[in-house]
Amino acid sequence: MRRLIVSLGERSYPILIGKGLLSETIDLGAALPKVTHPKIAIVSNETVAPLYLDALQSSLALVGADVTLIVLPDGEQFKTWESINVIHDAMLSARCDRNTTVIALGGGVIGDLAGFAAATYQRGVAFVQIPTTLLSQVDSSVGGKTGINHARGKNMIGAFWQPKLVVADTTVLQSLSAREFSSGMAEVIKYGLIRDMPFFEWLERNLETLMARDAETLAYAIEQSCSNKAQVVAADEMETAKEGGRALLNLGHTFGHAIETGMGYGQWLHGEAVAAGTLMAAELSRRLGWIAETDVTRIRAIYQRASLPTIAPNLGASRYLELMSHDKKNLNGKLRLVLLRQLGEAVTFSEVNKSDLIATIEACCEN
Amino acid sequence: MRRLIVSLGERSYPILIGKGLLSETIDLGAALPKVTHPKIAIVSNETVAPLYLDALQSSLALVGADVTLIVLPDGEQFKTWESINVIHDAMLSARCDRNTTVIALGGGVIGDLAGFAAATYQRGVAFVQIPTTLLSQVDSSVGGKTGINHARGKNMIGAFWQPKLVVADTTVLQSLSAREFSSGMAEVIKYGLIRDMPFFEWLERNLETLMARDAETLAYAIEQSCSNKAQVVAADEMETAKEGGRALLNLGHTFGHAIETGMGYGQWLHGEAVAAGTLMAAELSRRLGWIAETDVTRIRAIYQRASLPTIAPNLGASRYLELMSHDKKNLNGKLRLVLLRQLGEAVTFSEVNKSDLIATIEACCEN
Repeated sequence: MRRLIVSLGERSYPILIGKGLLSETIDLGAALPKVTHPKIAIVSNETVAPLYLDALQSSLALVGADVTLIVLPDGEQFKTWESINVIHDAMLSARCDRNTTVIALGGGVIGDLAGFAAATYQRGVAFVQIPTTLLSQVDSSVGGKTGINHARGKNMIGAFWQPKLVVADTTVLQSLSAREFSSGMAEVIKYGLIRDMPFFEWLERNLETLMARDAETLAYAIEQSCSNKAQVVAADEMETAKEGGRALLNLGHTFGHAIETGMGYGQWLHGEAVAAGTLMAAELSRRLGWIAETDVTRIRAIYQRASLPTIAPNLGASRYLELMSHDKKNLNGKLRLVLLRQLGEAVTFSEVNKSDLIATIEACCEN
Repeated sequence: MRRLIVSLGERSYPILIGKGLLSETIDLGAALPKVTHPKIAIVSNETVAPLYLDALQSSLALVGADVTLIVLPDGEQFKTWESINVIHDAMLSARCDRNTTVIALGGGVIGDLAGFAAATYQRGVAFVQIPTTLLSQVDSSVGGKTGINHARGKNMIGAFWQPKLVVADTTVLQSLSAREFSSGMAEVIKYGLIRDMPFFEWLERNLETLMARDAETLAYAIEQSCSNKAQVVAADEMETAKEGGRALLNLGHTFGHAIETGMGYGQWLHGEAVAAGTLMAAELSRRLGWIAETDVTRIRAIYQRASLPTIAPNLGASRYLELMSHDKKNLNGKLRLVLLRQLGEAVTFSEVNKSDLIATIEACCEN
């Protein structure tokens, strides 16, 4: 088992990474308040619960937990206040008090929902994440971002709320669909692109082993991804850095969010939109003279090997601009993008020329 | 003008207290991020907005702010997620970004709503409070508690979110109804009861001047109240102390919340319920042998001079117990009350005997 600490002062927490962790008794000692009858609320969804809930409940029974189960429907379209209210309602019915720990058992949507519910239940209770997708293991398990969607934009409502513990079991990744697995790979590749060229090169060498879901290769990739993210987050926990900082984690995301919103939530998986969005960011970086055409080709190649889309849907340039203008990274009404200064080094950039942007969108969308 | 600092490390902020502050140019420099075009969202209600919005907008125009107005209906029944959504929706429409400052102009409900909206908008934006009732000036302006009600209980959903600045203008208190003013007095008196006997005695000596709303007397009482609360909050910001700490601020509140919920939100004003609830806590403290009958009489007397109710509505003992069992101060399913060890010293107490509690409820309710 690999163990990584996310260093955030008094909010520091461990991430456990390894094979079969969910079917062992998880070390919840670090997360559960020291009380005689710990209250636990497990939040999961209809897809994940039948697969892993029994294993988790058996582990929790061993520590004498009093468990409330909250099983939500599966899908990004349920990342709404209504779902938060379902969680809160169940917790209030079960008389969960401030010593309750909320456990998220599921992918990114469940993590975001359970985390935001924990952040806002009686002004905040403890939170543990058991991410069951590659995407959530390498992305949402680090950084404390929780939240819900709003009709006017994705992740617009939320809170920073750090978990007390994250358990990433590589075994659960075996049951992911090929599309879900690839979606997670988009974020894994991103860490190499934005700040870790040796990791990017390791990925280029090991991509087929990784796509075959080899346990040890997966554990290494997850650890490197989380470690990269943890370093970025530790330096800029609340995303207040004027330049760089946490915003760099959003390479491809401003374009990607436009794709997700423009196509309707759930049509494109997050990682798929990020992959196509990253190619757009790469193309714009090339137009600025920062990276070469061969770099763009290299990025396209690794995404293609990971079975990810590299061509964006044709929403029309003006619709892209409209959707991108709502992005949370924008400051003082100015579009702020994450671009590549070189392969392995991302930067934030606010001086984007509108005609460059339109040309990029048109070059990267399908005809 | 009096100036008090609430000391919370990097979250410290000033409270300005004085006559006519709203009609002067408020020193928003401390609160507004240093940007060329500060975005401001003012949240107010239909009662307060016509009285003070013009003055505030004139002050903000002087600093070149780009203001979005959000005027909600007036009343505790609007302290719901739906109102939060109205605020978020308006802010998204106005393209408010993360550098936006949310200003609450109103009483406790507006403060709680605007604060929670600020805490959860794009995972948190700056917040300034301009409380326009005595209750909100002495209570909700210190401590960072924000939130909304849930059908199953008051203030069950929320976040800790500290303001950057609080402006308490004593002039606006002149237009409060007698009932509203008295409601605020319940909390002022509370600070004396729980931890400041000299202030309690000062209140006994100055109650009529205070009820006449003398500006200088008011400013002193508000400063002493905020100062007492700030000291308690600084020592226990997140209300995690096992004993004492922030919970002490809830003297009379467990009974009081039961009254508010049991009678239906809005029937009893918060301070009215706290006054009757404090008499119940005092009566229980007397039954435990901690305070004397003469102390209870003294508490009743000062509340009566402040035109506050000292007899609780007859909901029936079992309904009280049911409602009180949902209180957020409860830990591990055990009722935890704030009682008076002596006049001027409150304590948290979890060993309440059920028959004592029932006897207290029956003794304090109207027949």
